[in-house]
Amino acid sequence: MKISFIGAGNVAWHMAKAFGVSNQQIVEVYSRNIKNADLICSKLYNSLPKDDLDFSKSNAEIFIITVSDDAIEEVIGDAVFPANSIVVHTSGTKSIGVLDNLTDCRTGVFYPLQTFSKSKPINFKSIPICIEANDEETEQVLEKLAFKICENVCFYNSNDRKVLHLAAVFACNFTNHLLTLSKQILEKEGLEFSVLKPLIEETIDKAMINDPEKSQTGPAVRNDQKTISEHLKMLRKDEILENIYSIMTQSILERN
Amino acid sequence: MKISFIGAGNVAWHMAKAFGVSNQQIVEVYSRNIKNADLICSKLYNSLPKDDLDFSKSNAEIFIITVSDDAIEEVIGDAVFPANSIVVHTSGTKSIGVLDNLTDCRTGVFYPLQTFSKSKPINFKSIPICIEANDEETEQVLEKLAFKICENVCFYNSNDRKVLHLAAVFACNFTNHLLTLSKQILEKEGLEFSVLKPLIEETIDKAMINDPEKSQTGPAVRNDQKTISEHLKMLRKDEILENIYSIMTQSILERN
Repeated sequence: MKISFIGAGNVAWHMAKAFGVSNQQIVEVYSRNIKNADLICSKLYNSLPKDDLDFSKSNAEIFIITVSDDAIEEVIGDAVFPANSIVVHTSGTKSIGVLDNLTDCRTGVFYPLQTFSKSKPINFKSIPICIEANDEETEQVLEKLAFKICENVCFYNSNDRKVLHLAAVFACNFTNHLLTLSKQILEKEGLEFSVLKPLIEETIDKAMINDPEKSQTGPAVRNDQKTISEHLKMLRKDEILENIYSIMTQSILERN
Repeated sequence: MKISFIGAGNVAWHMAKAFGVSNQQIVEVYSRNIKNADLICSKLYNSLPKDDLDFSKSNAEIFIITVSDDAIEEVIGDAVFPANSIVVHTSGTKSIGVLDNLTDCRTGVFYPLQTFSKSKPINFKSIPICIEANDEETEQVLEKLAFKICENVCFYNSNDRKVLHLAAVFACNFTNHLLTLSKQILEKEGLEFSVLKPLIEETIDKAMINDPEKSQTGPAVRNDQKTISEHLKMLRKDEILENIYSIMTQSILERN
Protein backbone atom coordinates (compact mmCIF):
# COMPACT_ATOMS: atom_id res chain seq x y z
CA MET A 1 0.00 0.00 0.00
CA LYS A 2 1.06 3.58 -0.60
CA ILE A 3 1.10 5.61 2.58
CA SER A 4 1.83 9.22 3.48
CA PHE A 5 2.50 10.54 6.96
CA ILE A 6 1.30 13.89 8.22
CA GLY A 7 3.43 14.70 11.23
CA ALA A 8 7.01 13.63 11.88
CA GLY A 9 7.15 13.02 15.64
CA ASN A 10 7.76 9.84 17.61
CA VAL A 11 4.75 7.92 16.30
CA ALA A 12 5.61 8.64 12.66
CA TRP A 13 9.27 7.86 13.32
CA HIS A 14 8.53 4.32 14.56
CA MET A 15 5.49 3.55 12.43
CA ALA A 16 7.00 4.72 9.13
CA LYS A 17 10.07 2.60 9.79
CA ALA A 18 7.90 -0.43 10.63
CA PHE A 19 5.99 0.02 7.36
CA GLY A 20 9.27 0.49 5.52
CA VAL A 21 10.63 -2.77 6.88
CA SER A 22 7.46 -4.55 5.74
CA ASN A 23 7.97 -3.20 2.21
CA GLN A 24 5.14 -0.69 2.14
CA GLN A 25 5.83 2.47 0.21
CA ILE A 26 5.92 5.68 2.22
CA VAL A 27 5.18 8.28 -0.46
CA GLU A 28 5.50 11.47 1.61
CA VAL A 29 6.24 12.66 5.11
CA TYR A 30 4.86 16.08 6.07
CA SER A 31 6.17 18.28 8.85
CA ARG A 32 5.82 22.02 9.44
CA ASN A 33 9.56 21.82 10.02
CA ILE A 34 10.98 20.13 6.91
CA LYS A 35 14.06 18.96 8.81
CA ASN A 36 11.96 16.54 10.87
CA ALA A 37 10.42 15.15 7.69
CA ASP A 38 13.88 14.87 6.13
CA LEU A 39 15.11 12.86 9.07
CA ILE A 40 12.41 10.22 8.72
CA CYS A 41 12.68 10.12 4.91
CA SER A 42 16.41 9.49 5.21
CA LYS A 43 15.55 6.16 6.86
CA LEU A 44 13.10 5.17 4.13
CA TYR A 45 13.26 4.23 0.46
CA ASN A 46 12.23 6.95 -1.98
CA SER A 47 10.05 9.11 0.29
CA LEU A 48 9.42 12.81 -0.24
CA PRO A 49 9.70 15.24 2.69
CA LYS A 50 7.07 18.00 2.52
CA ASP A 51 6.25 21.14 4.49
CA ASP A 52 2.99 21.99 2.75
CA LEU A 53 -0.35 20.23 3.13
CA ASP A 54 -1.38 20.08 -0.53
CA PHE A 55 -1.65 16.36 -1.29
CA SER A 56 -3.98 16.84 -4.27
CA LYS A 57 -1.41 15.31 -6.64
CA SER A 58 -0.19 12.63 -4.22
CA ASN A 59 -0.49 9.01 -5.30
CA ALA A 60 -0.77 7.80 -1.68
CA GLU A 61 -3.87 5.75 -0.88
CA ILE A 62 -3.75 6.25 2.89
CA PHE A 63 -2.85 9.37 4.85
CA ILE A 64 -1.86 8.77 8.46
CA ILE A 65 -2.09 11.84 10.69
CA THR A 66 0.36 11.61 13.58
CA VAL A 67 0.43 15.24 14.76
CA SER A 68 -0.44 16.00 18.40
CA ASP A 69 -4.11 15.75 19.40
CA ASP A 70 -4.58 19.50 19.50
CA ALA A 71 -3.15 20.02 16.01
CA ILE A 72 -5.36 17.45 14.23
CA GLU A 73 -8.23 19.80 13.49
CA GLU A 74 -5.97 22.55 12.19
CA VAL A 75 -4.17 20.14 9.87
CA ILE A 76 -7.50 18.77 8.63
CA GLY A 77 -8.68 22.31 7.93
CA ASP A 78 -5.59 23.15 5.86
CA ALA A 79 -4.90 19.90 4.02
CA VAL A 80 -6.09 18.96 0.53
CA PHE A 81 -6.44 15.23 -0.09
CA PRO A 82 -7.15 13.31 -3.33
CA ALA A 83 -10.85 12.39 -3.55
CA ASN A 84 -11.73 8.99 -2.10
CA SER A 85 -8.41 8.52 -0.31
CA ILE A 86 -8.36 7.15 3.23
CA VAL A 87 -7.44 9.58 6.02
CA VAL A 88 -6.88 8.30 9.56
CA HIS A 89 -5.65 9.80 12.78
CA THR A 90 -3.57 7.96 15.39
CA SER A 91 -5.00 9.47 18.56
CA GLY A 92 -6.37 7.48 21.47
CA THR A 93 -8.48 10.32 22.77
CA LYS A 94 -9.86 12.06 19.69
CA SER A 95 -13.10 10.75 18.24
CA ILE A 96 -13.37 9.60 14.63
CA GLY A 97 -15.75 12.57 14.23
CA VAL A 98 -12.90 15.12 14.10
CA LEU A 99 -12.37 13.94 10.52
CA ASP A 100 -16.02 14.50 9.50
CA ASN A 101 -15.22 17.64 7.50
CA LEU A 102 -13.30 15.53 4.98
CA THR A 103 -16.47 14.73 3.03
CA ASP A 104 -14.56 13.57 -0.09
CA CYS A 105 -12.45 11.05 1.87
CA ARG A 106 -12.99 7.81 3.75
CA THR A 107 -11.98 8.31 7.36
CA GLY A 108 -10.89 6.23 10.31
CA VAL A 109 -8.66 5.79 13.33
CA PHE A 110 -5.41 3.84 13.43
CA TYR A 111 -4.27 4.02 17.04
CA PRO A 112 -1.16 2.15 18.22
CA LEU A 113 -1.61 1.52 21.94
CA GLN A 114 1.95 2.24 22.98
CA THR A 115 4.22 5.01 24.23
CA PHE A 116 6.98 6.02 21.84
CA SER A 117 10.27 7.83 22.27
CA LYS A 118 12.72 8.37 19.45
CA SER A 119 15.71 7.11 21.40
CA LYS A 120 14.25 3.71 22.29
CA PRO A 121 13.69 1.06 19.61
CA ILE A 122 10.35 -0.69 19.77
CA ASN A 123 9.03 -3.97 18.48
CA PHE A 124 5.81 -3.10 16.67
CA LYS A 125 4.80 -6.76 16.39
CA SER A 126 3.48 -6.92 19.96
CA ILE A 127 1.70 -3.54 19.96
CA PRO A 128 -2.09 -3.63 19.72
CA ILE A 129 -3.33 -1.38 16.91
CA CYS A 130 -6.87 -0.14 17.56
CA ILE A 131 -8.95 0.48 14.47
CA GLU A 132 -12.16 2.31 13.78
CA ALA A 133 -13.69 3.26 10.43
CA ASN A 134 -16.90 4.82 9.13
CA ASP A 135 -17.55 2.00 6.66
CA GLU A 136 -16.79 -1.69 6.45
CA GLU A 137 -14.61 -1.48 3.35
CA THR A 138 -12.32 1.08 4.97
CA GLU A 139 -12.19 -1.01 8.14
CA GLN A 140 -10.97 -3.96 6.11
CA VAL A 141 -8.26 -1.88 4.45
CA LEU A 142 -7.10 -0.59 7.84
CA GLU A 143 -7.11 -4.10 9.30
CA LYS A 144 -4.97 -5.34 6.42
CA LEU A 145 -2.65 -2.37 6.86
CA ALA A 146 -2.29 -2.98 10.60
CA PHE A 147 -1.42 -6.63 10.10
CA LYS A 148 1.52 -5.54 7.93
CA ILE A 149 3.27 -4.29 11.07
CA CYS A 150 1.59 -5.91 14.10
CA GLU A 151 0.01 -9.15 15.25
CA ASN A 152 -2.71 -7.74 17.45
CA VAL A 153 -5.47 -5.72 15.78
CA CYS A 154 -8.43 -4.53 17.89
CA PHE A 155 -11.69 -2.92 16.83
CA TYR A 156 -12.73 -0.17 19.21
CA ASN A 157 -15.20 2.61 18.71
CA SER A 158 -14.47 6.14 19.90
CA ASN A 159 -16.17 5.57 23.26
CA ASP A 160 -14.19 2.37 23.95
CA ARG A 161 -11.00 4.28 23.13
CA LYS A 162 -11.92 6.93 25.70
CA VAL A 163 -12.32 4.25 28.40
CA LEU A 164 -9.07 2.63 27.28
CA HIS A 165 -7.28 5.95 27.57
CA LEU A 166 -8.66 6.58 31.06
CA ALA A 167 -7.58 3.08 32.13
CA ALA A 168 -4.13 3.74 30.65
CA VAL A 169 -3.80 6.94 32.69
CA PHE A 170 -4.24 4.85 35.86
CA ALA A 171 -2.10 1.92 34.72
CA CYS A 172 0.72 3.90 33.09
CA ASN A 173 0.80 7.64 33.83
CA PHE A 174 -0.10 7.32 37.53
CA THR A 175 2.02 4.20 37.94
CA ASN A 176 5.02 6.03 36.53
CA HIS A 177 4.37 8.90 38.93
CA LEU A 178 4.29 6.51 41.90
CA LEU A 179 7.77 5.42 40.85
CA THR A 180 8.82 9.09 40.83
CA LEU A 181 7.41 9.56 44.35
CA SER A 182 9.13 6.40 45.55
CA LYS A 183 12.43 7.63 44.10
CA GLN A 184 12.00 11.01 45.82
CA ILE A 185 11.25 9.34 49.19
CA LEU A 186 14.48 7.34 48.90
CA GLU A 187 16.68 10.15 47.61
CA LYS A 188 15.55 12.51 50.37
CA GLU A 189 17.14 10.02 52.80
CA GLY A 190 20.23 9.48 50.64
CA LEU A 191 19.14 6.04 49.42
CA GLU A 192 19.27 4.85 45.83
CA PHE A 193 16.17 4.06 43.79
CA SER A 194 17.98 1.35 41.82
CA VAL A 195 17.83 -1.03 44.79
CA LEU A 196 14.04 -1.27 44.28
CA LYS A 197 14.23 -2.18 40.61
CA PRO A 198 14.18 -5.99 40.92
CA LEU A 199 11.19 -5.73 43.28
CA ILE A 200 9.31 -3.40 40.93
CA GLU A 201 9.97 -5.61 37.92
CA GLU A 202 8.82 -8.73 39.77
CA THR A 203 5.69 -6.91 41.00
CA ILE A 204 4.68 -5.96 37.46
CA ASP A 205 5.59 -9.37 36.16
CA LYS A 206 3.35 -11.03 38.75
CA ALA A 207 0.48 -8.64 38.07
CA MET A 208 0.70 -9.41 34.35
CA ILE A 209 0.80 -13.19 34.88
CA ASN A 210 -1.51 -13.70 37.89
CA ASP A 211 -3.83 -10.67 37.69
CA PRO A 212 -3.20 -7.63 39.86
CA GLU A 213 -6.12 -8.33 42.25
CA LYS A 214 -4.61 -11.65 43.20
CA SER A 215 -1.10 -10.23 43.54
CA GLN A 216 -1.79 -7.44 46.03
CA THR A 217 0.65 -7.42 48.96
CA GLY A 218 1.61 -4.86 51.60
CA PRO A 219 0.23 -3.37 54.80
CA ALA A 220 -3.09 -2.17 53.31
CA VAL A 221 -4.32 -5.54 52.06
CA ARG A 222 -3.24 -7.15 55.39
CA ASN A 223 -5.07 -4.32 57.18
CA ASP A 224 -1.87 -3.88 59.20
CA GLN A 225 -2.91 -0.68 60.97
CA LYS A 226 0.31 -0.45 62.98
CA THR A 227 2.49 -0.21 59.87
CA ILE A 228 -0.03 2.05 58.13
CA SER A 229 0.02 4.57 60.97
CA GLU A 230 3.83 4.41 61.19
CA HIS A 231 4.01 5.17 57.47
CA LEU A 232 1.55 8.05 57.75
CA LYS A 233 3.68 9.45 60.58
CA MET A 234 6.77 9.33 58.34
CA LEU A 235 4.86 11.27 55.66
CA ARG A 236 3.40 13.85 58.03
CA LYS A 237 5.38 16.74 56.60
CA ASP A 238 4.21 16.14 53.05
CA GLU A 239 0.49 16.63 52.65
CA ILE A 240 0.18 15.26 49.12
CA LEU A 241 2.16 12.09 49.89
CA GLU A 242 0.10 11.61 53.03
CA ASN A 243 -3.14 12.00 51.06
CA ILE A 244 -1.99 9.61 48.34
CA TYR A 245 -0.99 7.05 50.97
CA SER A 246 -4.36 7.35 52.73
CA ILE A 247 -6.56 7.14 49.68
CA MET A 248 -4.63 4.28 48.07
CA THR A 249 -4.77 2.37 51.37
CA GLN A 250 -8.50 3.01 51.66
CA SER A 251 -9.04 1.89 48.07
CA ILE A 252 -7.06 -1.35 48.59
CA LEU A 253 -9.05 -2.08 51.76
CA GLU A 254 -12.35 -1.54 49.92
CA ARG A 255 -11.59 -3.25 46.62
CA ASN A 256 -9.40 -6.21 47.49
CA MET B 1 28.27 -22.56 56.23
CA LYS B 2 25.72 -24.48 58.27
CA ILE B 3 22.33 -22.80 58.27
CA SER B 4 18.97 -23.49 59.90
CA PHE B 5 15.67 -21.93 58.90
CA ILE B 6 12.97 -20.96 61.36
CA GLY B 7 9.79 -20.64 59.35
CA ALA B 8 8.85 -22.54 56.21
CA GLY B 9 6.93 -20.02 54.11
CA ASN B 10 7.73 -18.46 50.75
CA VAL B 11 10.98 -16.76 51.81
CA ALA B 12 12.40 -19.96 53.33
CA TRP B 13 11.22 -21.98 50.32
CA HIS B 14 13.21 -19.87 47.85
CA MET B 15 16.15 -18.94 50.06
CA ALA B 16 16.82 -22.46 51.35
CA LYS B 17 16.78 -23.77 47.79
CA ALA B 18 19.19 -21.02 46.68
CA PHE B 19 21.59 -21.93 49.52
CA GLY B 20 21.19 -25.61 48.67
CA VAL B 21 22.16 -24.96 45.05
CA SER B 22 25.25 -23.06 46.22
CA ASN B 23 26.28 -26.08 48.34
CA GLN B 24 25.59 -24.64 51.78
CA GLN B 25 24.30 -27.12 54.32
CA ILE B 26 20.76 -26.51 55.59
CA VAL B 27 20.84 -28.30 58.95
CA GLU B 28 17.21 -27.85 60.02
CA VAL B 29 13.96 -26.30 58.88
CA TYR B 30 11.46 -25.42 61.62
CA SER B 31 7.74 -24.96 61.15
CA ARG B 32 4.88 -25.12 63.63
CA ASN B 33 3.31 -27.37 61.03
CA ILE B 34 5.90 -30.07 60.37
CA LYS B 35 4.44 -30.77 56.90
CA ASN B 36 5.65 -27.39 55.66
CA ALA B 37 9.13 -28.11 57.00
CA ASP B 38 9.04 -31.58 55.40
CA LEU B 39 8.18 -30.05 52.04
CA ILE B 40 11.26 -27.79 52.01
CA CYS B 41 13.57 -30.50 53.41
CA SER B 42 12.47 -32.84 50.63
CA LYS B 43 14.11 -30.42 48.17
CA LEU B 44 17.38 -30.27 50.13
CA TYR B 45 20.22 -32.63 50.95
CA ASN B 46 20.17 -34.10 54.46
CA SER B 47 18.04 -31.48 56.27
CA LEU B 48 15.99 -32.17 59.37
CA PRO B 49 12.39 -30.94 59.60
CA LYS B 50 11.49 -29.75 63.11
CA ASP B 51 8.40 -28.52 64.91
CA ASP B 52 10.06 -27.55 68.19
CA LEU B 53 12.24 -24.51 68.82
CA ASP B 54 14.95 -26.18 70.90
CA PHE B 55 18.13 -25.69 68.86
CA SER B 56 20.48 -26.11 71.85
CA LYS B 57 22.07 -29.20 70.28
CA SER B 58 22.02 -27.89 66.71
CA ASN B 59 25.32 -27.62 64.89
CA ALA B 60 24.07 -24.77 62.69
CA GLU B 61 26.13 -21.57 62.81
CA ILE B 62 23.44 -19.27 61.46
CA PHE B 63 19.72 -19.27 62.21
CA ILE B 64 17.56 -17.45 59.68
CA ILE B 65 14.13 -16.46 60.95
CA THR B 66 11.63 -16.23 58.08
CA VAL B 67 8.33 -16.26 59.99
CA SER B 68 5.87 -13.39 59.46
CA ASP B 69 6.76 -10.05 61.07
CA ASP B 70 4.23 -10.44 63.85
CA ALA B 71 5.49 -13.90 64.84
CA ILE B 72 9.18 -12.97 65.19
CA GLU B 73 9.01 -11.90 68.82
CA GLU B 74 7.06 -14.97 69.90
CA VAL B 75 9.53 -17.29 68.16
CA ILE B 76 12.46 -15.45 69.77
CA GLY B 77 10.84 -15.82 73.16
CA ASP B 78 10.40 -19.58 72.77
CA ALA B 79 13.55 -20.61 70.93
CA VAL B 80 16.79 -21.87 72.51
CA PHE B 81 19.93 -21.25 70.45
CA PRO B 82 23.51 -22.47 70.94
CA ALA B 83 25.62 -19.79 72.63
CA ASN B 84 27.44 -17.46 70.23
CA SER B 85 25.47 -18.55 67.17
CA ILE B 86 24.25 -15.93 64.70
CA VAL B 87 20.50 -15.26 64.60
CA VAL B 88 19.04 -13.03 61.89
CA HIS B 89 15.55 -12.09 60.80
CA THR B 90 14.50 -11.44 57.20
CA SER B 91 12.01 -8.62 57.71
CA GLY B 92 12.14 -5.29 55.95
CA THR B 93 10.09 -3.53 58.58
CA LYS B 94 11.26 -4.95 61.91
CA SER B 95 14.25 -3.33 63.59
CA ILE B 96 17.36 -5.30 64.52
CA GLY B 97 16.37 -4.48 68.11
CA VAL B 98 13.63 -7.15 68.18
CA LEU B 99 16.46 -9.69 68.62
CA ASP B 100 18.02 -7.86 71.60
CA ASN B 101 16.75 -10.43 74.11
CA LEU B 102 19.08 -13.03 72.60
CA THR B 103 21.97 -11.89 74.79
CA ASP B 104 24.01 -15.08 74.18
CA CYS B 105 23.81 -14.75 70.38
CA ARG B 106 25.13 -12.43 67.70
CA THR B 107 22.21 -10.87 65.89
CA GLY B 108 21.48 -9.24 62.57
CA VAL B 109 19.14 -8.72 59.65
CA PHE B 110 19.27 -10.57 56.35
CA TYR B 111 16.52 -9.02 54.25
CA PRO B 112 16.00 -10.05 50.62
CA LEU B 113 14.34 -7.11 48.88
CA GLN B 114 11.91 -9.10 46.79
CA THR B 115 8.36 -10.47 46.76
CA PHE B 116 8.11 -14.26 46.80
CA SER B 117 5.40 -16.69 45.87
CA LYS B 118 5.86 -20.46 45.96
CA SER B 119 4.46 -21.00 42.49
CA LYS B 120 6.85 -18.65 40.70
CA PRO B 121 10.55 -19.46 40.38
CA ILE B 122 12.89 -16.61 41.13
CA ASN B 123 16.47 -15.84 40.27
CA PHE B 124 18.13 -14.94 43.56
CA LYS B 125 21.24 -13.62 41.78
CA SER B 126 19.63 -10.27 40.96
CA ILE B 127 17.90 -9.73 44.31
CA PRO B 128 19.48 -7.15 46.64
CA ILE B 129 20.06 -8.62 50.10
CA CYS B 130 20.09 -5.93 52.79
CA ILE B 131 22.29 -6.63 55.75
CA GLU B 132 22.57 -5.18 59.22
CA ALA B 133 24.52 -6.52 62.20
CA ASN B 134 25.37 -5.42 65.72
CA ASP B 135 29.09 -5.98 65.25
CA GLU B 136 31.54 -5.88 62.38
CA GLU B 137 32.53 -9.54 62.53
CA THR B 138 28.90 -10.66 62.23
CA GLU B 139 28.37 -8.20 59.39
CA GLN B 140 31.26 -9.79 57.51
CA VAL B 141 29.83 -13.28 58.01
CA LEU B 142 26.44 -12.13 56.74
CA GLU B 143 28.01 -10.41 53.76
CA LYS B 144 29.87 -13.60 52.84
CA LEU B 145 26.67 -15.58 53.30
CA ALA B 146 24.68 -13.22 51.08
CA PHE B 147 27.25 -13.40 48.29
CA LYS B 148 26.75 -17.19 48.18
CA ILE B 149 23.31 -16.60 46.64
CA CYS B 150 23.19 -13.06 45.28
CA GLU B 151 25.34 -10.47 43.52
CA ASN B 152 23.98 -7.36 45.19
CA VAL B 153 24.59 -6.93 48.92
CA CYS B 154 23.54 -3.65 50.60
CA PHE B 155 24.24 -2.39 54.10
CA TYR B 156 21.21 -0.62 55.58
CA ASN B 157 20.44 0.20 59.17
CA SER B 158 16.97 -0.28 60.60
CA ASN B 159 15.93 3.28 59.83
CA ASP B 160 17.05 3.01 56.18
CA ARG B 161 15.05 -0.20 55.89
CA LYS B 162 11.94 1.60 57.14
CA VAL B 163 12.35 4.25 54.41
CA LEU B 164 12.99 1.53 51.86
CA HIS B 165 9.82 -0.25 52.90
CA LEU B 166 7.76 2.94 52.66
CA ALA B 167 9.18 3.61 49.19
CA ALA B 168 8.35 0.04 48.18
CA VAL B 169 4.74 0.51 49.28
CA PHE B 170 4.47 3.38 46.77
CA ALA B 171 6.45 1.69 44.00
CA CYS B 172 5.00 -1.80 44.33
CA ASN B 173 1.87 -2.14 46.49
CA PHE B 174 0.20 1.04 45.23
CA THR B 175 1.40 0.47 41.67
CA ASN B 176 -0.13 -2.99 41.70
CA HIS B 177 -3.38 -1.51 43.00
CA LEU B 178 -3.46 1.04 40.16
CA LEU B 179 -3.32 -1.91 37.78
CA THR B 180 -6.28 -3.43 39.62
CA LEU B 181 -8.23 -0.17 39.27
CA SER B 182 -7.33 0.08 35.59
CA LYS B 183 -8.54 -3.48 35.05
CA GLN B 184 -11.81 -2.72 36.83
CA ILE B 185 -12.38 0.42 34.73
CA LEU B 186 -11.96 -1.64 31.55
CA GLU B 187 -13.98 -4.64 32.66
CA LYS B 188 -16.90 -2.48 33.74
CA GLU B 189 -17.18 -1.46 30.07
CA GLY B 190 -16.63 -4.98 28.76
CA LEU B 191 -13.05 -4.31 27.64
CA GLU B 192 -10.09 -6.58 28.30
CA PHE B 193 -7.17 -5.59 30.51
CA SER B 194 -4.72 -7.63 28.43
CA VAL B 195 -4.77 -5.02 25.65
CA LEU B 196 -2.91 -2.64 28.00
CA LYS B 197 -0.11 -5.06 28.86
CA PRO B 198 2.43 -4.02 26.19
CA LEU B 199 1.91 -0.37 27.17
CA ILE B 200 2.34 -1.11 30.89
CA GLU B 201 5.49 -3.14 30.28
CA GLU B 202 7.00 -0.43 28.10
CA THR B 203 6.10 2.24 30.68
CA ILE B 204 7.92 0.38 33.46
CA ASP B 205 10.81 -0.43 31.16
CA LYS B 206 11.24 3.25 30.28
CA ALA B 207 11.00 4.34 33.92
CA MET B 208 13.71 1.84 34.85
CA ILE B 209 16.03 2.90 32.03
CA ASN B 210 15.43 6.66 31.79
CA ASP B 211 14.24 7.56 35.30
CA PRO B 212 10.53 7.94 36.04
CA GLU B 213 10.65 11.76 36.32
CA LYS B 214 11.89 12.02 32.76
CA SER B 215 9.40 9.47 31.45
CA GLN B 216 6.17 11.04 32.68
CA THR B 217 3.50 11.29 29.98
CA GLY B 218 -0.25 11.84 29.99
CA PRO B 219 -2.74 14.67 30.45
CA ALA B 220 -1.49 15.78 33.90
CA VAL B 221 2.11 16.51 32.90
CA ARG B 222 0.86 18.30 29.76
CA ASN B 223 -1.57 20.22 32.00
CA ASP B 224 -4.25 19.23 29.49
CA GLN B 225 -7.23 20.51 31.50
CA LYS B 226 -9.75 19.52 28.86
CA THR B 227 -8.85 15.83 29.03
CA ILE B 228 -8.50 15.96 32.83
CA SER B 229 -12.01 17.31 33.27
CA GLU B 230 -13.42 14.80 30.76
CA HIS B 231 -11.79 12.00 32.76
CA LEU B 232 -13.12 13.35 36.05
CA LYS B 233 -16.58 13.45 34.50
CA MET B 234 -16.27 9.78 33.50
CA LEU B 235 -15.35 8.92 37.11
CA ARG B 236 -18.08 11.03 38.70
CA LYS B 237 -20.00 8.05 40.07
CA ASP B 238 -17.02 6.60 41.91
CA GLU B 239 -15.75 8.87 44.66
CA ILE B 240 -12.53 6.98 45.43
CA LEU B 241 -11.47 6.77 41.78
CA GLU B 242 -12.28 10.45 41.34
CA ASN B 243 -10.18 11.33 44.40
CA ILE B 244 -7.25 9.18 43.28
CA TYR B 245 -7.39 10.77 39.83
CA SER B 246 -7.45 14.30 41.31
CA ILE B 247 -4.65 13.85 43.79
CA MET B 248 -2.35 11.99 41.40
CA THR B 249 -2.94 14.70 38.79
CA GLN B 250 -2.21 17.43 41.33
CA SER B 251 0.95 15.63 42.45
CA ILE B 252 2.21 15.23 38.86
CA LEU B 253 1.55 18.94 38.21
CA GLU B 254 3.47 19.95 41.34
CA ARG B 255 6.40 17.53 41.16
CA ASN B 256 7.20 17.20 37.46
